[in-house]
Amino acid sequence: MTFELRPIGHVESALADLDDAPKQADEGAPDAWLVLDPALREAAADIAPGDELVVITWLHESDRDVLVVHPRSDPSRPPTGVFSTRSPARPNPLGLHTVRVLAVDGTRIHVDALEAVDGTPVVDLKPTLSSRR
Amino acid sequence: MTFELRPIGHVESALADLDDAPKQADEGAPDAWLVLDPALREAAADIAPGDELVVITWLHESDRDVLVVHPRSDPSRPPTGVFSTRSPARPNPLGLHTVRVLAVDGTRIHVDALEAVDGTPVVDLKPTLSSRR
Repeated sequence: MTFELRPIGHVESALADLDDAPKQADEGAPDAWLVLDPALREAAADIAPGDELVVITWLHESDRDVLVVHPRSDPSRPPTGVFSTRSPARPNPLGLHTVRVLAVDGTRIHVDALEAVDGTPVVDLKPTLSSRR
Repeated sequence: MTFELRPIGHVESALADLDDAPKQADEGAPDAWLVLDPALREAAADIAPGDELVVITWLHESDRDVLVVHPRSDPSRPPTGVFSTRSPARPNPLGLHTVRVLAVDGTRIHVDALEAVDGTPVVDLKPTLSSRR
């Protein structure tokens, strides 16, 4: 049994290459646009500047068959099971990113520091728990 | 273009019914077991009691065609776009849950307060950012 994930949009970013991507947003990721499917306008209609969102991406360039990785934060450490890491290599390469909304232009959402490369599919947006309505 | 999400396991919980599920874990959800696919043992091998994990579930009973909901926290409020809510009804019904690991028995992981019904598919596990390795 599998489930079908449908992109709701994609990331538009100056970050073109995974090797340039910082491991986490607080390490210097650029701002970016979330470009949503116009058919989902109503679902995004209440997103406003200042909102804190969890962006869930599909890290489409990841290797899904990797179960163990050397942590990027310290390659000298022993291999670690991927479920104890934030490595993009994992059975379902879902990325979790917390961002702040800077501006909204229809179904284009400008957000601060996002560590995902240009073209990365977006699959969900949620308010963070502390900001939920 | 769509992506294929493969369950890595499922939730085993005393919570049998969505109507009994609290909206958020801090509102009285029971502890539960994450029962992982034994083929993924290596990926989970470094999970230990005390770890704080983000569990990503697939809320398989959700309506994917809903774009606007009445917030459960206050049904008198006006309809709100689902991307500004944590409603399970949304285009890709991914659930995000932060839990603490209580015990590990092979690929069975006992966790505290989890607001997901028995049988809910699990699609990813990650350390929370504050606990990442």
